[in-house]
Amino acid sequence: MRHPTAYCTCWPGATVWLTGLPSSGTSAIAEELVRRLVPERRRVEVLGGGENRAPLTADLGSGREDRIAGVRRIGLVAETLARNGILALVPVIAPQADAGTAVRRRHERSGTPFLEVHVTTPAEVCTEREVKGPYTRGQATGNLTGPTGPTGADDPYEPPHTPDLAIPAHRQRPEESAALLLGLLKERGLA
Amino acid sequence: MRHPTAYCTCWPGATVWLTGLPSSGTSAIAEELVRRLVPERRRVEVLGGGENRAPLTADLGSGREDRIAGVRRIGLVAETLARNGILALVPVIAPQADAGTAVRRRHERSGTPFLEVHVTTPAEVCTEREVKGPYTRGQATGNLTGPTGPTGADDPYEPPHTPDLAIPAHRQRPEESAALLLGLLKERGLA
Repeated sequence: MRHPTAYCTCWPGATVWLTGLPSSGTSAIAEELVRRLVPERRRVEVLGGGENRAPLTADLGSGREDRIAGVRRIGLVAETLARNGILALVPVIAPQADAGTAVRRRHERSGTPFLEVHVTTPAEVCTEREVKGPYTRGQATGNLTGPTGPTGADDPYEPPHTPDLAIPAHRQRPEESAALLLGLLKERGLA
Repeated sequence: MRHPTAYCTCWPGATVWLTGLPSSGTSAIAEELVRRLVPERRRVEVLGGGENRAPLTADLGSGREDRIAGVRRIGLVAETLARNGILALVPVIAPQADAGTAVRRRHERSGTPFLEVHVTTPAEVCTEREVKGPYTRGQATGNLTGPTGPTGADDPYEPPHTPDLAIPAHRQRPEESAALLLGLLKERGLA
């Protein structure tokens, strides 16, 4: 059964797929956007890593196949949320651009908005942050753990082919990056 | 961050955990309730089996541990949906009552309503239905497949210890069973 897409006076749901290298700042942007939207009574959920998500991905290792399986599971949950009017923010280090494409297709099949955002912090900046330790709480509880965590050395990160937005998170504060993302959501009628 | 629980004029979310033997009628009740609630613009999602959920559980077999892992994954998705204002209906054949208890605790931790409903169709009726084949479309696409599917012969079904409601689905039509469940939801302020 196809469910109606508009309820009450809420905004439509959407998935924002925030992809970048480990420590690129994806989680910090997601958490900053939550801080902006929750006071507006917007339903929003960050699907990061962390212990609370253990049942979903605890069985997965860091190998390529396991990482792709994790991306697909998180993508399914995001699509289910977004199809039901929730803004699902997903900080993810997709090991292969194709993994993101499969998630995009799942959204297209159900007519659910899907935005792919590339956080373009360069590798040298990310490495420096990792040496210094997690640079924000969001990062520590977000994409540094679990199967959406660091890409293995033998499995290089592939940036998305055609992102809806590229955010140079290394040149600005998370607040500014979140504002950029909020601008895209407003432009698309999703916030 | 704790999100507000009331948005717009929507109802609060909740998870309805519909447990019973294979072919007991859990999926048919869930689908009937959807038919009742969708015209009222209620956000509702049935988390049954079926191909569309493959990324979530396709790696799991029919052994006890795998089945419990499947229950916990589905429980996590249900809690995430329900916490965000959606009515999540989960037809499930929990192999052990404890698996349902873990899911209930997850809901309690986030202050999300969780109702456990025991569909009490007796084994002999279920077996007869299975011999004749799936007796409704809901059953065919619901809990006859995947890790929420049939309990293995060496892993007997345990009914829930303290269900919120027991539905004798073998004595009435799915419409009547769904009306009983809707009554419980209204009584609890969830519909």
